[in-house]
Amino acid sequence: MSVLVVGSVALDSVRTPNGSVEEALGGSASYFSLAARHFTDVQMVAVVGDDFPSQSRELLVASGVDVGGLSTKPGRTFRWAGEYGADLAYAKTLATELNVFAAFHPELTPRQRQAETVFLANIDPELQLEVLDQVESPLFVACDTMNYWITSKRSALMKVMRRADVCLLNDEEARLLSGDAQVPRAARLLLDEGVKCLLVKKGEHGALLFSRDERFFCPAYPHEKLVDPTGAGDAFAGGFVGYLDQQGGKRPLPLRQAMICGTALASLCVEAFSPQRLAEITRGEIAERVKVIRSLAHMPDVTFD
Amino acid sequence: MSVLVVGSVALDSVRTPNGSVEEALGGSASYFSLAARHFTDVQMVAVVGDDFPSQSRELLVASGVDVGGLSTKPGRTFRWAGEYGADLAYAKTLATELNVFAAFHPELTPRQRQAETVFLANIDPELQLEVLDQVESPLFVACDTMNYWITSKRSALMKVMRRADVCLLNDEEARLLSGDAQVPRAARLLLDEGVKCLLVKKGEHGALLFSRDERFFCPAYPHEKLVDPTGAGDAFAGGFVGYLDQQGGKRPLPLRQAMICGTALASLCVEAFSPQRLAEITRGEIAERVKVIRSLAHMPDVTFD
Repeated sequence: MSVLVVGSVALDSVRTPNGSVEEALGGSASYFSLAARHFTDVQMVAVVGDDFPSQSRELLVASGVDVGGLSTKPGRTFRWAGEYGADLAYAKTLATELNVFAAFHPELTPRQRQAETVFLANIDPELQLEVLDQVESPLFVACDTMNYWITSKRSALMKVMRRADVCLLNDEEARLLSGDAQVPRAARLLLDEGVKCLLVKKGEHGALLFSRDERFFCPAYPHEKLVDPTGAGDAFAGGFVGYLDQQGGKRPLPLRQAMICGTALASLCVEAFSPQRLAEITRGEIAERVKVIRSLAHMPDVTFD
Repeated sequence: MSVLVVGSVALDSVRTPNGSVEEALGGSASYFSLAARHFTDVQMVAVVGDDFPSQSRELLVASGVDVGGLSTKPGRTFRWAGEYGADLAYAKTLATELNVFAAFHPELTPRQRQAETVFLANIDPELQLEVLDQVESPLFVACDTMNYWITSKRSALMKVMRRADVCLLNDEEARLLSGDAQVPRAARLLLDEGVKCLLVKKGEHGALLFSRDERFFCPAYPHEKLVDPTGAGDAFAGGFVGYLDQQGGKRPLPLRQAMICGTALASLCVEAFSPQRLAEITRGEIAERVKVIRSLAHMPDVTFD
């Protein structure tokens, strides 16, 4: 089993009330891969410039991520800068420089084309479709996106979302894409448009899964030591997709278990700047966090007199 | 067993994208009582003006609420007007007329003084203390408040909160009272100030319980048919406190079960304007909603390979 992820690798500059970092490893594919790696093998497809620091590449390699698909192009690496307020709830983007990422056009190798599990991180939905067309017979596909593509390429995005087994959005994106301000109704509208399974990430408020057959709510870990929320959504996706890949073709998909794993990885990710914690954590720490999250929402029997 | 509730009875005018009502029965004590009544007997202590509609009083009586402590004073009943935006998340207050409620000064009867379970709904914390001093030996006390008292009477409010077994706040109030923008840290600070157990209501995002020994997260019911959120917090309190009273002096307190009941009552409350649904619902509907909420966050075992 292994997961193919196509997304961004970036250099992030982040300011929070707890401190800041400059040009640290970032990007959806980095966070995703370093989280998913705890469950399964990961093949990363992304692009960096010739200024990409060798220690960042080494961190990925040392963590066991297959970076054979991380190509280096002449020019500068994608850069993002953002800052968070006191509640650490929302990032305000200060600067985005696409650089070599602007011309990203993934060509999969024969081995990558045979991937069984695919995560299409937040990139142009037309590229997501091109990637999907190159994968021969995927067993499980998940995708993510952002407000920019919802507004500018809704039609291509809906094509991706209809082909995916699970679509991850945050609550704002679900509202924007559906045109409905209430998340449960937004989810219903998207299912009616052919989305098979929608996973709505709500940050500190947890995550909700909606499909024809099931609704599941997984609480977030109530963190008292939140340092930097950057990448939490991609770390969630990495734990979620990584666990599903590890469990192979199990049917029905163990979606609840995967969401708990995603929540655990996201909660560990935010304990430090950049994906540093994701690279450091042990299987034991993940298992302990999973245990705490499960007990947090343990629902006892309710008997009335 | 019976619950004593001290709070407001009001006439509410509410506008939502789904419609509106004018001068409908409202107020914290009304919503609380009509929810708690499904679990236990309720004695209401509140005040109305001589314009209070007889059909509103009759609705309370017909629902089995003991309105012996609902006194009528010369003048107009407390009125509140508010409106909600498309997401139905926050009420914008358009008008507040305290009227006879401004001079509310509860004097408990000998029977009320023997109450074992007390809910101090959102009133001046100095009045909450006066009420608490009149109750001879309460077994369980819960309290609520609002931003106005947090800002203007923090010291009296903290006295109430230290004496209560469970303090209910919404997330904004927890942030305001603690001075910390992150809810889990806000809860920690309030526990450090002597609060025994804090229940943070987060509306559509569910409710979190924090105590020295326990953290529990109960998800909200993901409503697709939200009509009017007014009173949801008090209906939650009614289900929560009503269930605890019904279960008597059981120790440890069945707090998780009570939170599920509170969530069920809140989710039923918001299906219609005013407390109309609370008056109509059956035990069967409550049990069904409890079942759905429990299954919504059912946490399966997670095994890693």
